[in-house]
Amino acid sequence: MKGIKRLAQHLDISIGTVSRALNGKPDVNEETRRRVLDAAALLGYAPNQAGRSLRRGSTNAVGFMIESNDETETNSDNFFLGVIGGLTGALLKHNLDLVVLPCSVNEDPHDYLQRIVARRLVDAVIISATQRRDRRIDLLKAARIPFIALGRTGGPDEHAWIDLDFEGVAHKAVARLAALGHRQIAVAIPDNEINLGYVFRDAFEDAMAHHRLTVDPSHIIRARSSEHGGYTIGNALLAMEKRPTAIVLVYEMMAIGLYRRLNEAGLTPGRDLAVVGFREGPQSQFLSPALTSFRMSLRDLGIGLAEGLLATMPAYADQFPQGFVHKLWPMELVEGESDAMVIGR
Amino acid sequence: MKGIKRLAQHLDISIGTVSRALNGKPDVNEETRRRVLDAAALLGYAPNQAGRSLRRGSTNAVGFMIESNDETETNSDNFFLGVIGGLTGALLKHNLDLVVLPCSVNEDPHDYLQRIVARRLVDAVIISATQRRDRRIDLLKAARIPFIALGRTGGPDEHAWIDLDFEGVAHKAVARLAALGHRQIAVAIPDNEINLGYVFRDAFEDAMAHHRLTVDPSHIIRARSSEHGGYTIGNALLAMEKRPTAIVLVYEMMAIGLYRRLNEAGLTPGRDLAVVGFREGPQSQFLSPALTSFRMSLRDLGIGLAEGLLATMPAYADQFPQGFVHKLWPMELVEGESDAMVIGR
Repeated sequence: MKGIKRLAQHLDISIGTVSRALNGKPDVNEETRRRVLDAAALLGYAPNQAGRSLRRGSTNAVGFMIESNDETETNSDNFFLGVIGGLTGALLKHNLDLVVLPCSVNEDPHDYLQRIVARRLVDAVIISATQRRDRRIDLLKAARIPFIALGRTGGPDEHAWIDLDFEGVAHKAVARLAALGHRQIAVAIPDNEINLGYVFRDAFEDAMAHHRLTVDPSHIIRARSSEHGGYTIGNALLAMEKRPTAIVLVYEMMAIGLYRRLNEAGLTPGRDLAVVGFREGPQSQFLSPALTSFRMSLRDLGIGLAEGLLATMPAYADQFPQGFVHKLWPMELVEGESDAMVIGR
Repeated sequence: MKGIKRLAQHLDISIGTVSRALNGKPDVNEETRRRVLDAAALLGYAPNQAGRSLRRGSTNAVGFMIESNDETETNSDNFFLGVIGGLTGALLKHNLDLVVLPCSVNEDPHDYLQRIVARRLVDAVIISATQRRDRRIDLLKAARIPFIALGRTGGPDEHAWIDLDFEGVAHKAVARLAALGHRQIAVAIPDNEINLGYVFRDAFEDAMAHHRLTVDPSHIIRARSSEHGGYTIGNALLAMEKRPTAIVLVYEMMAIGLYRRLNEAGLTPGRDLAVVGFREGPQSQFLSPALTSFRMSLRDLGIGLAEGLLATMPAYADQFPQGFVHKLWPMELVEGESDAMVIGR
């Protein structure tokens, strides 16, 4: 059994109703929807030209591209799972299913997305881990696939994006440390081409300048975005002749490795070195002393991304007339003990 | 621009070659493949009846259904990310893309999968978090969708599955504790209908009987599969008049909350209560004393699932002639200090 026409015949319902039921349109009553889905699943319905045409080539699926690599696999980072939770619920209200598209570390993200786009697996895409120069943006624009980016790029932003408020985090962290008397403040950024490293470094330097503090070039530490990266940051700090009195981290998992390395050296965060983490994560509560970090709702970010994406999709533009969203996602300071020390002037 | 025919005309390549390139068949040279994918992405190719027919209705995508809920979101559990890494690489060798299908906590898993199947988003499916009675199995069989289950069910197993070796873990843990003199051993299992809870309880009771030990019904503790669940297990243990001297956990994150609760009560794992964790996770290394747990390769499990699934797909049965895989995934004991105490007889 194939095709919407034969499915309609089998059910003795009009093709239009079957199509609307398959596509989850709200004008089909619940009982009919169930009958159609039951029959479609049991009889092995596959969309043919008629179905495709009625559905205007749509899949009713939205893709969320994430990069799967050794770091994310061992990091036990809950970031994407949290965002997915928000996305799924918000999209389901509009009868869209979220499919997560994990790009392997062995594949170029652009080539991966190109194949997904060519196969038309999804109607619209959310990309993440934006690079400074991100060719995926050009690809999606040329293919006219609606999309939103989680993260900015270094290029023009004539497209929808939402990014974390790295500027706000850098300014709040530096202001707090400067008020406690710190003058030698280091920053840890990723050692790859992800754009957030550039954004955070710029924001950090801007915040330091605002407080008339000088950034020592050796205090800009590049490391992997992982627990292990935090450990290597600890190594770098301990090896310095002129050690900073404070460090601001761009990635939450770094704090765990840094704590471990400091502990091994007999040093205590908040007493021997002030540490300001990034996003408050589930691990924070197990760190002692408590890490000063920044709170945000992953679920709300997922909802925000869903709504920003719907605004780029012609079929939903009426309901979401905001056009291209450009939004910095707020992060709220959570005071811990990891930067409690006061520096004498 | 729509349709494979117009794409072929534009490129001046045969429809068959374009189809094979779009479907990633190995008999198309790399340069041609790139030209076709570039053109398909840039010109907005969408499969029409001809393309569908040539491709026999296939999407070249495999779905991995996971349940997204409050626990997985806050747990920072790396289990699925690790498995996805292995799956992605193994499937890509066969020109299949993995799409992750996150079922929201607000939706019934069966109804969710029914919609995905009806929309024919994927050619084949991996399901996880199998329930004792799992209607998704019947759905997939009836719809003739190739699938493999990560986890057993309580029903007939005339389908492919791979599950963790809960029996091996329970027997190794109980044997170890019995040898150290423990007689009152508790077990922690999930408080929901996931089948692994039943499997692990049965295996634990079997192992206890093997060592001629009695299971006190109050020592079978049901809790949420999360850090917080571990904390409530600690509460339950502390409230017992007749406290067990050891506990075996079915879920790795429980250990973290249990450690925290014990520490709050001034008790030390491995001295006041023997604790055997489940899967060795990235958090284990931050627990002190080190948790006795079981090691497995998430990546290899992903590869095993991919190969077991390919064996169920007609197009790949020649290369993977193993039929329905029924496999218990081995887990290797990693000795820690959390169960180092010896009980006097």
